[in-house]
Amino acid sequence: MARRPTIRDVAARAGVHPGTASRALNPALPGRIAAATALRVRTAAEELGYTPDPTARSLRTRRSGVVGVVVPDLTNPVLPPIVRGVEETLWAAGIACLVADTDNDPAREAVAVRELLARRCEGLVIATATRASATVRALAGADPPAVLVTRDVEDAGLPFVAGDDAGGVEAAAHHLLHLGHRRIAYLAGPPDLSTTVTRRAAVERAFADADLVVASARTYGIADGREAARDLLASAPRPTAILAGNDMLALGVYEALAEAGLRCPADVSVAGHNDMPLVDRLDPPLTTVAIPRAEIGVAAARVLLDRMAGGGDGGGPRRTLLPTRLVLRGSTGPPQAAASRARGLG
Amino acid sequence: MARRPTIRDVAARAGVHPGTASRALNPALPGRIAAATALRVRTAAEELGYTPDPTARSLRTRRSGVVGVVVPDLTNPVLPPIVRGVEETLWAAGIACLVADTDNDPAREAVAVRELLARRCEGLVIATATRASATVRALAGADPPAVLVTRDVEDAGLPFVAGDDAGGVEAAAHHLLHLGHRRIAYLAGPPDLSTTVTRRAAVERAFADADLVVASARTYGIADGREAARDLLASAPRPTAILAGNDMLALGVYEALAEAGLRCPADVSVAGHNDMPLVDRLDPPLTTVAIPRAEIGVAAARVLLDRMAGGGDGGGPRRTLLPTRLVLRGSTGPPQAAASRARGLG
Repeated sequence: MARRPTIRDVAARAGVHPGTASRALNPALPGRIAAATALRVRTAAEELGYTPDPTARSLRTRRSGVVGVVVPDLTNPVLPPIVRGVEETLWAAGIACLVADTDNDPAREAVAVRELLARRCEGLVIATATRASATVRALAGADPPAVLVTRDVEDAGLPFVAGDDAGGVEAAAHHLLHLGHRRIAYLAGPPDLSTTVTRRAAVERAFADADLVVASARTYGIADGREAARDLLASAPRPTAILAGNDMLALGVYEALAEAGLRCPADVSVAGHNDMPLVDRLDPPLTTVAIPRAEIGVAAARVLLDRMAGGGDGGGPRRTLLPTRLVLRGSTGPPQAAASRARGLG
Repeated sequence: MARRPTIRDVAARAGVHPGTASRALNPALPGRIAAATALRVRTAAEELGYTPDPTARSLRTRRSGVVGVVVPDLTNPVLPPIVRGVEETLWAAGIACLVADTDNDPAREAVAVRELLARRCEGLVIATATRASATVRALAGADPPAVLVTRDVEDAGLPFVAGDDAGGVEAAAHHLLHLGHRRIAYLAGPPDLSTTVTRRAAVERAFADADLVVASARTYGIADGREAARDLLASAPRPTAILAGNDMLALGVYEALAEAGLRCPADVSVAGHNDMPLVDRLDPPLTTVAIPRAEIGVAAARVLLDRMAGGGDGGGPRRTLLPTRLVLRGSTGPPQAAASRARGLG
């Protein structure tokens, strides 16, 4: 292919000295040039598709033009829109993203962060493998700046950007209470993630006056959701509604209901969290809490850019919680009060 | 946080000269050292969590340790498992991935490749925005090496890794013929992608003896699929089966069927392509062609590593087509021959 155009090519096309071309394209360099000359240089640069050489610039400025993005599992449908939001926002600021997948493994997370720092990343955006991540805690107050996204790490002292999970769970709980449910089950995710802790605490607050039973799934996967849902369905009296920690767990509830010959929502209402693609097309379509995934990515990138530009935290690390939205679909309905009372007695 | 350990830290811990430590960790450097010393240095390096500094090494070796991955849309559910397969395979070889999203826009693709090359990527993995990409064609036969994944570019002369789409489509077509369908519609994707061309050609071969009607969707999105499906359902006699270019288009067919008050598969059978997450849980579950997404990513990374190590093409660029698999579910069944004949006359 054609080689990248250099500043010399731009200078030749504009009919100026290379030093003049450099100054025209980088106002931070010393020396003044006429506006008409600067315009001619910029036009030539654009026509040639000239971009400054980031490696050469990196040697002068000690900046790599690269940020590291650490995710637990890119195939988790929550994450690609977030990564895309991060990537597009940083790209617009001239920064490229190194993406590393940790497979939810703290040891791989440690290696990923070390290798990204070794590549002189100017910042990190991290969806951590665990809320007790020592790797993440070690990043606090140091260079380069780091921002946590969707999953928080306790006492890490780092900025955090996510959906307002507590608000979303509260809306789902009020919806179920308003439908008349009083015997309610919560299917919580694995306890090593902040999302689980935040959502569960909100559920316990919202159902303080209801009959709440809680089970924990080992992972946020369908099979583990099904297993935990079996226990919930076996409890007596059987709950009339199951709120699941996320949509994958709700799919596990659907499977457990089918195994038990129970209908949704006639026998048991089900609600999820995240509004994953296609849950609107399930049978029945899933009531769930939608989180603004792309916007979370954009916001995380903006917080990071602000930190990279030297912005600090007045009074503790910034927490950005973007509004979530309860999406009502066919999986929730009023309880069959009489029927469930009869079963409760049996 | 603690600073990265340097080669000096490793040397101090092992009780050797820094030059000795360097040679122990990099057999390519000149000079010999005793096996016991080498072992002591490697142990010290491991204990300290030492990794060589890629930027410093890059200055010596002119290698960046970075590969660029260009995708049309990370939120397209086909792509994250492929990107993860690429990323994990390269990571195991000590190479990090810069990921750039082009939003299916050739202009953004051009900028992405230029910026990735400016960051001295040692290779590129590209799922192109269009099968006529001038940006991709310009990469042929040049440094750094590039590999195309899932989407080919005609006459680009670059290695290509994908699922065996033609084989998958052929299996789906034989399934429909075997069920007894003879009046069949194909809902093709947009003509600017190689996947569309490959799949459509296979359909036309497989249904050479059947009554085949074809419509093209403007994009691989649900709404465009619905629009094109409306036309297909309005054709007389109405097809008894619709094969869709991918699962998103099949979802559009589902919507068009619902609008027209038609049942699937009783009135019209539907099959898709890709086996996206959750299409097994639609109503009805979708018959589709599964492509080995993670394996495609792994294979693409391996081809690239081979090229980066100097491996060439004996007799034209390598094409790697991994086996696809027809997954039979509830959306396909035998045609209601009598009923469809009656409607065809009406």
